[in-house]
Amino acid sequence: MPKKPRVAVVGATGLVGREILKLLHDRDFPAAQVVPFASARSAGEDILFGNRTLKVEELTREGLVNQCDIALCSAGRNVSYDIRKWVEGTDVVVVDNSSAFRMAPDVPLVVPEVNPEDARYHKGYIANPNCSTIQLVVALHPLQRHFGLKRVVVSTYQSVSGAGNRGVEELSQQSIALFNGSTLKNEIFPKRIAFNVIPHIGPFDEAGYTEEEMKVTHETRKILALPKLGISCTAVRVPVFASHSEAVTVDLDKPADVPGVRAVLAEQPGILLMDNPAEGVYPTPADAVGRPEIFVGRIRSDLSGTNAFHFWVVADNLWKGAALNAVQIAELLVDKDWL
Amino acid sequence: MPKKPRVAVVGATGLVGREILKLLHDRDFPAAQVVPFASARSAGEDILFGNRTLKVEELTREGLVNQCDIALCSAGRNVSYDIRKWVEGTDVVVVDNSSAFRMAPDVPLVVPEVNPEDARYHKGYIANPNCSTIQLVVALHPLQRHFGLKRVVVSTYQSVSGAGNRGVEELSQQSIALFNGSTLKNEIFPKRIAFNVIPHIGPFDEAGYTEEEMKVTHETRKILALPKLGISCTAVRVPVFASHSEAVTVDLDKPADVPGVRAVLAEQPGILLMDNPAEGVYPTPADAVGRPEIFVGRIRSDLSGTNAFHFWVVADNLWKGAALNAVQIAELLVDKDWL
Repeated sequence: MPKKPRVAVVGATGLVGREILKLLHDRDFPAAQVVPFASARSAGEDILFGNRTLKVEELTREGLVNQCDIALCSAGRNVSYDIRKWVEGTDVVVVDNSSAFRMAPDVPLVVPEVNPEDARYHKGYIANPNCSTIQLVVALHPLQRHFGLKRVVVSTYQSVSGAGNRGVEELSQQSIALFNGSTLKNEIFPKRIAFNVIPHIGPFDEAGYTEEEMKVTHETRKILALPKLGISCTAVRVPVFASHSEAVTVDLDKPADVPGVRAVLAEQPGILLMDNPAEGVYPTPADAVGRPEIFVGRIRSDLSGTNAFHFWVVADNLWKGAALNAVQIAELLVDKDWL
Repeated sequence: MPKKPRVAVVGATGLVGREILKLLHDRDFPAAQVVPFASARSAGEDILFGNRTLKVEELTREGLVNQCDIALCSAGRNVSYDIRKWVEGTDVVVVDNSSAFRMAPDVPLVVPEVNPEDARYHKGYIANPNCSTIQLVVALHPLQRHFGLKRVVVSTYQSVSGAGNRGVEELSQQSIALFNGSTLKNEIFPKRIAFNVIPHIGPFDEAGYTEEEMKVTHETRKILALPKLGISCTAVRVPVFASHSEAVTVDLDKPADVPGVRAVLAEQPGILLMDNPAEGVYPTPADAVGRPEIFVGRIRSDLSGTNAFHFWVVADNLWKGAALNAVQIAELLVDKDWL
């Protein structure tokens, strides 16, 4: 078990890959070396790592398994299917940002503030949850522990960076086109996203839920170890570049009140409360960009008298929702000697 | 009771006032005359009414009560306080878009597809509900009638036109400023709205709810005549110019299923279903602009097994959410001879 593991970043030129490189550098991750991998198209490019540059290598089995102890992968589901086969029988531990194996029973799905122990029993492969799930479970976890969760309803307000570089470009292009009267391109999102909202992220299932909505349901159940939790989501793309927001309603088991809910959320590592309505203090996506915390505000009691509460959760979907959580998993493995 | 009433439009130069004039013309409202009123600042301006222009008059008591049988008012709360005094003891019937008297026990709060009979017992003053409330209650009404409502949770995605001309200008200005690097103006919304979302519409109360959220609660209870309905809202401003969207969760009394919920919503006058996920059919704000219908889609069963359902409601907040509903109330008064 190397004290200073060699780290591979797969999908290094993508939105999440670049943030992983930045975080590995800025958080002084104890890496013996960092090797960025990408597709043949990007191979040979220089990419920033602190104040120096690294040469992007083309992703191949040999290149990967011979040069790393931990691989942080953000290159989409298809690449992850290959990588899982490649690392079988090697000592490489993969932290995978894609959804490929999140629900696989032998793959831990980990948010370090919530279920760190699950990472211990990895078999060389750990999944990083969906962005919307991560910020939600960090807030649900202390409520579950103190009060028990009976039911959860979530409405999301998700930024376009969740759809990668091309999602960001599409919102820019469409916004400018609407102002200057030029032609809108519409390739990434199912409808126009500029000055519009779209309740459609990923394909629909037969019950009418989208894939994104069911990720929130299934992944939350797995991370919280509550396989029957009644949790439903409406996932909506909004014309915001970075950070996801969520309006959350929780029905609790044990009697609770707003000060009690606020207190347990305030104590939860990873959460920063911004909840002082009298002073107009609550989080918005613009407040969360490039910040590691999950911001919680607007905590209040439901008006139906059913021991339910509402709150508003905002986090940078590229950081805590993706790159940062993956790096934190790698840090956990090193700290605990679980590699 | 005049067959062809004289109509005053108060606040004629505002966003809602202009839409009222357009709707009166385009729907052939049987008006003997239409007189547009505004503040002294706008008096004397010409304003479009079909293919002719009307001269805007300065709002005064005499000008108003001597020239109309129905006054459609959209000039804010303070003007409405004056007008209510002015019309006391006259035969003028006011349809007021402001929130000034919505919760007054002697003022009917009317959505013609939901509680038309309430308009009958007006005492010269009828209130038009809040935009977010109108599109919600039209969808809740048939569910209440067929299945009974146990609890409602709403998350809104509200466009900036709900904040009037200056709200629209602020989103434009900020969006352009972010692209060209010039200084952002921030006067109307509590934080930056361009490429951001803000869970804060109107002042906060002591329980942490905003005024907009409590309008939805109180007005829905009044319109549906369910004074104890457990209904809670999270109201969020989004960077969309026109049309409000809502993610709605309803817990029903009597057992229901998705086809049953869909069927009663489809039959409800005023609603147009856009609900065919297999074909990617669901409404977005861009689909609803300048349309009289309330669009409903994304109907599905909650995953908690508690006889709860989710749906997505979109409507043009300046039309059905304001101007159109007011004109429909006036049409109802004329049709039924309730002036």
